[in-house]
Parts: sequence; C-alpha cells; structure tokens
Amino acid sequence: MNLLAVLDYGSVLVFAITGALVASRAQLDLVGFAFIASLTALGGGTIRDLLLDRDPIFWIADPTYLAVAVAAALAVFFTAHLLESRRRALLWLDSLALSIAVAAGAGVAMALDQTAVIVVLMGMITGCMGGLMRDVVVGDVPVVLKQGELYVTAAFAGSATAALARHYGFDPLVTLPGCAVVTWILRAGSL
Amino acid sequence: MNLLAVLDYGSVLVFAITGALVASRAQLDLVGFAFIASLTALGGGTIRDLLLDRDPIFWIADPTYLAVAVAAALAVFFTAHLLESRRRALLWLDSLALSIAVAAGAGVAMALDQTAVIVVLMGMITGCMGGLMRDVVVGDVPVVLKQGELYVTAAFAGSATAALARHYGFDPLVTLPGCAVVTWILRAGSL
Amino acid sequence: MNLLAVLDYGSVLVFAITGALVASRAQLDLVGFAFIASLTALGGGTIRDLLLDRDPIFWIADPTYLAVAVAAALAVFFTAHLLESRRRALLWLDSLALSIAVAAGAGVAMALDQTAVIVVLMGMITGCMGGLMRDVVVGDVPVVLKQGELYVTAAFAGSATAALARHYGFDPLVTLPGCAVVTWILRAGSL
Repeated sequence: MNLLAVLDYGSVLVFAITGALVASRAQLDLVGFAFIASLTALGGGTIRDLLLDRDPIFWIADPTYLAVAVAAALAVFFTAHLLESRRRALLWLDSLALSIAVAAGAGVAMALDQTAVIVVLMGMITGCMGGLMRDVVVGDVPVVLKQGELYVTAAFAGSATAALARHYGFDPLVTLPGCAVVTWILRAGSL
Repeated sequence: MNLLAVLDYGSVLVFAITGALVASRAQLDLVGFAFIASLTALGGGTIRDLLLDRDPIFWIADPTYLAVAVAAALAVFFTAHLLESRRRALLWLDSLALSIAVAAGAGVAMALDQTAVIVVLMGMITGCMGGLMRDVVVGDVPVVLKQGELYVTAAFAGSATAALARHYGFDPLVTLPGCAVVTWILRAGSL
Repeated sequence: MNLLAVLDYGSVLVFAITGALVASRAQLDLVGFAFIASLTALGGGTIRDLLLDRDPIFWIADPTYLAVAVAAALAVFFTAHLLESRRRALLWLDSLALSIAVAAGAGVAMALDQTAVIVVLMGMITGCMGGLMRDVVVGDVPVVLKQGELYVTAAFAGSATAALARHYGFDPLVTLPGCAVVTWILRAGSL
C-alpha cells in the first residue's frame, strides 16, 4: 500500500467519523449514520474524480473505501453517547480529516501530472467538499464558511505547499506529509 | 419497451409530481414547477450515470424522460389547488417514487454487471438523491434525514434484496419488482 | 478569441463578482471570497461539462477562467465597503451574469451539435446552477426560487430563442447575443 492509498484511507476514516457525529446530533438511524458518513468521507474525492474524469471513481474501483466509511459509522453509532462533547470532538477530527484529504487530493492530481493550479484546486476540493456537502445536507451553516475559521485558507496553504514542493523537486513522500502538516497547523490554530 | 425503461419512466413521472407539489408549496411559476420537477425526477439517475460514467446521461440520450417530467409539472400546476392535503399526498407519492427509482437504479447497475456493493449503492443513490436535492434546494429539511422515516433504510433493504436475488439466479423480471415492493413496504410502513 | 470564449469569460467575471458580494455579506476572509466566487462563476459551466462529458472541464483546460474568478474576488474584497447597497448591486449584476451564462451554455451545446432540447437545457443549467449553488452553500433562499423573479423563466426564454434562431439558420454571432438580450430583458424586467 503506497502513501497515496494510506492518505486516502485515513481521510475517509476520519471524515466518516465526523459525518457519523453529525448524524448522531441529527438523531438518525443506523443506515442514516452510514449514509451521512459515506457522503462526507467519499464526497470530496468523488467530485475530484468526476472533474478529472478518472474512471472508475475511486470507491467504485475499490469498495474498501466504502467499507471503511460504513464501519466507522457503525462504531460511532454504538459509542457516540460516550463522547461528552461531540461538537468539540467534531471540530478537531474535522481539522485532521481536512489536512489528510487535502494531501490525498493534491497527491492524486500530482500522480496525474496536472499543473500546479489544478493540484492546488484538487487539494482544496477534496478537502472541503465532503464536509461542505455534509453540512448543507443536514442544514447546518457550513464550517467552511464560518468567520475566522481559516478552513479554505488552510486547505489552500497546504495544497500550495505541495505544489511548490513538487516544483522544487521534492519527493511525494516529503511533499504530501508536508502538505497535511501545513493544512493542519493553520486549521487547528484557528480552533 | 423493457422492464428497466418502464421503471425509469415510472420513477421519473412520480418523482416529477412530488417535485411539482413542492414547487406548489413554494408558490413558484410554471417554469419553476418544471425546473424543480425535473431536478427531482432526473437528479438521482443523473448522479448514478455520472458516477458510472454512462455516456450520454439517460435524459440526454432520450429526452422523453424530460418531456415526462415537464408534462407532470404542467399537470400539477393546473390541478394542485384541487388536492386538499398536499403534504400527505407528497409523502405517499414520494414513497412510491422511491421504491420504483431504487429498482431502476439497481437495475441499471445490474445491466452493467456491477458488483453487489455497487448495485446496492446505485439503488440507494438513484432513489434518494433526487428527493434530497429537491429538499435542499427549496430549503426544507430533507425527508431522507428525518427521524423514524426509514427512508434510506428502505432503499438499502430494497436494493440489497435485488442484489441477493440476482446472486441466487433470479430473473430481473422477478428481482426488480421484488426490490420495489420491499422498498415500498418498509417506507410506507414508516409513514 | 471567438464569441463563445468572450461570453464564457464575461459570465465568469460577472458571476464571480456576485459570489464575492455574497461572501462579503457572510464576512468571509480573502480565500473564502475566492472560493464562493469560483463556485458561483464556474459551477454552472462545470455541471454542463460533466453532463455533456466534455473532457477536460473548461477551467481545467484553461485555468485563465479560474484566474478571472479569483481576480474578481480580490477586487471585490478590497472595494466591497464602497458599495452602498450590495443587495441591489447583487441582483442587477446577477441578472447580467445570468443572461451571458445562458448564452454561453446554449452556445457550447450548439457547438457540440446537440438537439434543441439539450441546447435549451444547457443554457438553463449553465445560467442557473452557479447562482443556485452559491445561495444553497451560504444558506440563502435561492434567488432562482423566489416568487415573481422570472429567473428560470428568463433563462428558458433566452435559450429557447437561441435554439429557434439556430433552427431558422441564423449565425451564432446573431443567435447568442439575441439569447443574452432576451434573457436579460425578462430577468431585469422582474426586478
């Protein structure tokens, strides 16, 4: 399993947990948990794959991604009542998911030899769109859009770091973790 | 006209009526009716076709689907005032549309020889996404997400039935109606 | 630069300004401005390109579109406080963007030799979907759906004009400006 796959699975897992926590606040049933968790976890990457015309979509090519999202939803379904402050946990997990997903999105675009502009955008889209769809669907104000949250800004800084590091010849093994760290520091710093 | 086409037209017709009833509550004009009716009726299948990279999209290949949706919108536009309780009518029609659309979505995925996981998902996506987009666009809480509605659960049970029946060698002529019936019983039972 | 490109750039520019004005009301930061401006400006055309399976998407093929949207967002970010009534400016700009985008969408479908039905739809989708996504994402009631706004109706009339004019053999140099003018007169007349 290469670095790109590790990042993809990681972001799917953590975003699925954030989706399941939102489903928990909305008091959905088990299938509702799995639905929102999958939308959150797979949504950003799906839009990235549609825009880049990757065929098949990553979770159709490898349904393990979907299994990870559903398993995370089940785990949260049976343990969400144990978490004292879901809101706080949600924000921290979301910042983690964002940073991994931005790196995964930028990594896919770099693996397809896209230009720097598209690398930056795919990082931002993969990182932000899943959480955006989660919030829009359940009727919350999108975290992405809240004042002072540095959400999109963090995604931009992270994927710009990745594009710059590639430009100066760094290996993806350095570029992508660097992208995730920059994204996370900015986003977590705003919490 | 084969079974799959009948299911597709049926779900387009009934979902278009639900979309037009929502447009009626929002007091839109005639074109607004046609717009929301088409979004609801064609939205789920469009997402399915984009994800499966079917080209062209079903309603670009055959604009009759669009004509059916627009005709249904016109019919509701001139008769909606006759319906005493639109809310009730909407929920029952929606349960019918859901069950037909789930069967149509699962049927398309089976016709493309997709795996069981993808068959189940395409059934759920085709069934749930049109109504979800309808509700998000007009600013309602999505029916899909209301507590105790068994909406996504019904779609899951129906398309899982279809995937199982195919696994045991049943003919689509049995599988798809079975899928629609299972979906409808669960969804209607929760109303 | 041909007429189609002028229309495309024009609609991207004006829609980006409307998106940035919405970002201004939501008090987002600079990157948030660029994000909403790009979603608004490129959203409708992106959906059009996905549905028509154009590959690559127009702003991946030519990132200048994206640069225009981001530049417009920056310009509004530093000048929005000068505008006395943003709401009013927003509606007028939006009507202008709508009419140009409808012409651009219909023009792309005509350049691909699509049927009249698809030309009309692509005009409507390109014109309405960007603004619809902008409003849904920031949690506003979509302008598209407000009573008495003639929004979708104007888009329909404009793209139907384009399809009819093509049918009677008019040149795109006449057809597309005609489409924009018809759309704008109807939409602006309802303001």
